[in-house]
Amino acid sequence: MSKSSKNWFLAKGDSIDLKDIDPGYTGDYHSKEDTESEKAELTEIFEKLQPKLFASGKKSVLFVFQGMDCSGKDGVINKVFSISNPAGIHIHSFKAPTTEERNHDYLWRAHQHVAGYGYISAFNRSYYEDVLITRVHGQIDDPTAKQRFKQINHFEKMLEENGVRVVKIFLHISKEFQLKKLIDRVEKPHKNWKFDKGDLQERKYWDDYQKCYEDVFKHCASDDHPWHIIPADNRWYRDLAVLQIVVRTLQEMDLSYPDPIPELQEHLPDMYAELEKLKKK
Amino acid sequence: MSKSSKNWFLAKGDSIDLKDIDPGYTGDYHSKEDTESEKAELTEIFEKLQPKLFASGKKSVLFVFQGMDCSGKDGVINKVFSISNPAGIHIHSFKAPTTEERNHDYLWRAHQHVAGYGYISAFNRSYYEDVLITRVHGQIDDPTAKQRFKQINHFEKMLEENGVRVVKIFLHISKEFQLKKLIDRVEKPHKNWKFDKGDLQERKYWDDYQKCYEDVFKHCASDDHPWHIIPADNRWYRDLAVLQIVVRTLQEMDLSYPDPIPELQEHLPDMYAELEKLKKK
Repeated sequence: MSKSSKNWFLAKGDSIDLKDIDPGYTGDYHSKEDTESEKAELTEIFEKLQPKLFASGKKSVLFVFQGMDCSGKDGVINKVFSISNPAGIHIHSFKAPTTEERNHDYLWRAHQHVAGYGYISAFNRSYYEDVLITRVHGQIDDPTAKQRFKQINHFEKMLEENGVRVVKIFLHISKEFQLKKLIDRVEKPHKNWKFDKGDLQERKYWDDYQKCYEDVFKHCASDDHPWHIIPADNRWYRDLAVLQIVVRTLQEMDLSYPDPIPELQEHLPDMYAELEKLKKK
Repeated sequence: MSKSSKNWFLAKGDSIDLKDIDPGYTGDYHSKEDTESEKAELTEIFEKLQPKLFASGKKSVLFVFQGMDCSGKDGVINKVFSISNPAGIHIHSFKAPTTEERNHDYLWRAHQHVAGYGYISAFNRSYYEDVLITRVHGQIDDPTAKQRFKQINHFEKMLEENGVRVVKIFLHISKEFQLKKLIDRVEKPHKNWKFDKGDLQERKYWDDYQKCYEDVFKHCASDDHPWHIIPADNRWYRDLAVLQIVVRTLQEMDLSYPDPIPELQEHLPDMYAELEKLKKK
């Protein structure tokens, strides 16, 4: 049974102040246990829909995950998509562009990682970094950012018109939550490898990042490819909320198996005759 | 507790007659239930090893799956790798080459799909098709096949020397098993889309394929990158046998987390001071 929780679903032109959304929000859910039965139901639905997406081979879906460092992008992608057939999903983590990638327009590398029809793609970071980190650090100016918003909208619309559903998810955490995660990486020796001094540096630009995100939400959301803001200080709520979105997306795609092909039946007599022969051997 | 089952593990120069291996073999295991506790144990070991492979970021592993149509390559890849973190695995199904791929040497496209360090790759079919289907249909002659065996050995050795473990798995089914699967695809309307008339055609070359496979095993196996022949008429046995190989491979790679970095501790006082401030807000 689904309990109620608020959805921060941003469509065209919606403005939002991230300060107004509590990263610790969990709706009517009070604990991980509260979410288990619904997760199990959603998992079952997902397991029925993914093979249909694959079999029909005519549509695909791209889930874009964004969020501050430590917001749990890796974690939620692992949790949610580990229920999928791994052969039907392409997950790509965008890092700093390589020399070759830098030698192209910023959408070039992203486009290459959009999976083919029948598949699910998940982007861990994305082309949105090109209006976030680049903007925060003054590598692009405001007119360029505005221009890119339009380009991104056109890119997503083109995908949509060609059978690729684009769904964007922002994992919203508090500054305190991030700091605790970073402390954890320093304090636990086996997690030291995850710690990047650069994260402490980026953290100083927290407010700038939040502003740039708000601008992204305002300019790059539409009814067709909205942004979802997920309060993510509680992993169990984050996992449920993302799973809800993933399953709802597939449900709305109206997927079905290809039509039966009655003509195939004509092969059966020969096949059964051969089977008899093989059995006698 | 692991029961005993025979391993068809082919190293350098080993000859084998596939007719000598019963595709219905299940060793000391008599049912799916017989395999459950071992599968659970292996899953647990896998779940501990994959993050180490990823964290160390210095090695990778490539599992190559080959087998006749209907041998269950899709199925076993789904079953075995659905226990993995989906962000750490790249699965690629090789189809008939595209125009661009055909315009390159046959190893070109395969090489591109070998995942980076830290990742697991699984190939559903592979460059071995270029000494199988091409040979069965006379697109390449015997001297070319022999030449390709050497090229493949050099390719796999190069990968091995550069940190990519290559493990090759052949799913061995009976002619009867394949026919039953094909009948099933014809009889069940929702499976019709999976049926390819070409499969009935290819089936006529069964013996030729088996011979070509035997030649591959004889020429393209070494102690470092052996072939494993898995009796695959019973799915539950096939899944267990492949999981055993996957886990053993990771165990033999001697994986560990990167060393702790004690110097990081110096960041802690400032981090805790900031945390106190945030809590007071």
